[in-house]
Amino acid sequence: MKSVKVGICGLGTVGGGTFNVLKRNAEEIARRAGCTIEVAQIAARDTNPKCDTTGTPITADVFELVTNPEIDVVVELIGGYTIAKELVLKAIEHGKHVVTANKALIAVHGNEIFARAREKGVIVAYEAAVAGGIPVIKAIREGLSANRINWLAGIINGTGNFILTEMREKGRAFEDVLKEAQALGYAEADPTFDVEGIDAAHKLTILASIAFGIPLQFDKAYTEGITKLTTADVNYAEALGYRIKHLGVARRTDAGVELRVHPTLIPADRLIANVNGVMNAVMVNGDAVGSTLYYGAGAGMEPTASAVVADLVDVARALSCAPQGRVPALGFQADALSELPILPIGECESAYYLRIHAQDRPGVLAKVATILSERGINIESIMQKEAEEQDGLVPMILVTHRVVERNIDDAIAALEALDDISGNVVRIRVEQLN
Amino acid sequence: MKSVKVGICGLGTVGGGTFNVLKRNAEEIARRAGCTIEVAQIAARDTNPKCDTTGTPITADVFELVTNPEIDVVVELIGGYTIAKELVLKAIEHGKHVVTANKALIAVHGNEIFARAREKGVIVAYEAAVAGGIPVIKAIREGLSANRINWLAGIINGTGNFILTEMREKGRAFEDVLKEAQALGYAEADPTFDVEGIDAAHKLTILASIAFGIPLQFDKAYTEGITKLTTADVNYAEALGYRIKHLGVARRTDAGVELRVHPTLIPADRLIANVNGVMNAVMVNGDAVGSTLYYGAGAGMEPTASAVVADLVDVARALSCAPQGRVPALGFQADALSELPILPIGECESAYYLRIHAQDRPGVLAKVATILSERGINIESIMQKEAEEQDGLVPMILVTHRVVERNIDDAIAALEALDDISGNVVRIRVEQLN
Repeated sequence: MKSVKVGICGLGTVGGGTFNVLKRNAEEIARRAGCTIEVAQIAARDTNPKCDTTGTPITADVFELVTNPEIDVVVELIGGYTIAKELVLKAIEHGKHVVTANKALIAVHGNEIFARAREKGVIVAYEAAVAGGIPVIKAIREGLSANRINWLAGIINGTGNFILTEMREKGRAFEDVLKEAQALGYAEADPTFDVEGIDAAHKLTILASIAFGIPLQFDKAYTEGITKLTTADVNYAEALGYRIKHLGVARRTDAGVELRVHPTLIPADRLIANVNGVMNAVMVNGDAVGSTLYYGAGAGMEPTASAVVADLVDVARALSCAPQGRVPALGFQADALSELPILPIGECESAYYLRIHAQDRPGVLAKVATILSERGINIESIMQKEAEEQDGLVPMILVTHRVVERNIDDAIAALEALDDISGNVVRIRVEQLN
Repeated sequence: MKSVKVGICGLGTVGGGTFNVLKRNAEEIARRAGCTIEVAQIAARDTNPKCDTTGTPITADVFELVTNPEIDVVVELIGGYTIAKELVLKAIEHGKHVVTANKALIAVHGNEIFARAREKGVIVAYEAAVAGGIPVIKAIREGLSANRINWLAGIINGTGNFILTEMREKGRAFEDVLKEAQALGYAEADPTFDVEGIDAAHKLTILASIAFGIPLQFDKAYTEGITKLTTADVNYAEALGYRIKHLGVARRTDAGVELRVHPTLIPADRLIANVNGVMNAVMVNGDAVGSTLYYGAGAGMEPTASAVVADLVDVARALSCAPQGRVPALGFQADALSELPILPIGECESAYYLRIHAQDRPGVLAKVATILSERGINIESIMQKEAEEQDGLVPMILVTHRVVERNIDDAIAALEALDDISGNVVRIRVEQLN
């Protein structure tokens, strides 16, 4: 099997996550990509205690990695503008493909970097630069390519969303929540990029370019932070049926493109108004598809690595497959499908909602509880209503913990055989979907 | 510029939508694809009153189209298993790439079709087969390729979700809402495929295969419909903090794969529990990325066409571009970027939330309203609170209709100049995000 050789620059949070995901999921990734993706070298000043890099060559000099003739793809995860830019341009110069998670670099220097990449015939991929693990760059560049995009709006800074969620849910003041976010590691010691909207403006600049087909123009983005928001306004907004979110909004009008980051009232029943905590979401509205939404973790070690590695798979597929076989029909190579069996429903596991109509007499609940516990079924919650007028039966509603379905089938048969129970037991599955 | 020649089989809802989107967005699509996508022939028994097909050759014989040597890509939009299967296999035999929206065909005959396509070196694309315009096939096959997928769960039948939404929100009975759905055209005269979960099981079968890398096994999917759900259970679920949704669930366990479609209680605060009406959403949980969600229109003329045409762009890019240039960095070809200007914030349009602290005396509201109306600013809602204890000021909260920002800036300056107004006016933008 062919192997694509990768060099990782930077072994911090995202670099470490990328290394770990490539290692842990090596087999799954090879089944998808049709080739192996091998970390041939790492450039980092320090090791990462969360990574076992035994066996992988490490250099302290990123420029040594970038010029290493063995390496096909350079992964830039050091951040910032200066060295990162030099490093990426040098990698391109040496004919390497580049994967980066660096939103600031792409938003500010992307036009120049992409032009050099075109000249040299290499790919520069940057899915991880916007909304972490959510494949929203791919959704817009490829999934919605039929559409004239009308507008997009995103919660694209997790720190800001965490602060606003806490302000709303707990009535806390901005400064107070910011301190907690810093303690939790969600916000930097200098939180300016997050709370003043600069990070969001970097990401919005990128999204607007791929949505409308315009050059990157970060310097023209309007940026307003959340530092001046008060709990009074959060509460008034709530009373009017709105939530306040820190949004990046890009809209196409006849006159041009609106490109703006600011706190925004959104009707509380919109899906995006219910995206809370550090989570990210981007709405994209196209003339054919209407409104779509993409939701997930916008930052963090492995969510961001998920996007970096997906870019690596894209590059590997481009390098090693014929165009018509680039993405196999089922996503995995045809000769690498698994024989994992489909389980019969009796072997599936779920929690269950049960509705039982019981006679209103003592001891029924004890009998029901005994039947369930004998089959290893634990009760999570129970609700008993008053007797119904006509028949004197008491509706008893139970929600169980997770259990294999055949045990529930067996319990239902035993319950229905009780004299105290009338008619069939209603059974509906329950999933937490965490 | 190169041209990729497409033949559309079927000019019903989706076929008509595909034709119209390709025509209306021809320029935008060419800017993205790097080539034009031309409808060279249509096979249809009837014309579609929503399509102006003047100038496009039409045949009544799909097999004439499929063997037409001019055509590069056959778009199968006739539906069903029998003729559709024959047609797709014949197209592959003749070396044509195929794009289809036919979930039943892929779920039941996909293994055979994909094997033939591999032998002939052609692409079979089917994004439109699952969740209409939402690019969820692409998200799983490419966007999440770094992950070992743990589970996925989707609302993937709009008719069923419409019925459950109406039952919950309006306390209506299943039969009653089904009749309305049929009258509105959401449900077929024979609603079996929708309400018994067969349509959802087709789609779930496809999603599970691409998530776990297993062959398509529709016959092993457990399928339970929504016909037996009562409003009593919908209400009890609500009282326990849950919503009932008709979900397709696929989960990887050590023993195998759970593949099941059934009504499901979900905690009411989950994002997917708040996907209402005919909308679709799919949650995908991967070991690196965690939980992600994809939301949009799951059916309809142009949403489905959006996915069909995105597949055509994918095929066109594979045929006409070098691998490293398949998807241009900004999604549009570098020489096709637009010069659309970024608007200064004063030229952007939004609705506004204004908080004004006014003296508690007569005539203030009239002055405020006059200042706004003189600048063409209409008030959507107004909320006046009691005077605050300390200073006797009355907080007055206004939400305006949409207006250009410079008019609001001007109004705020005028408001702040009033003797009756204390301090600065708080201004937050409002977006409906429909």
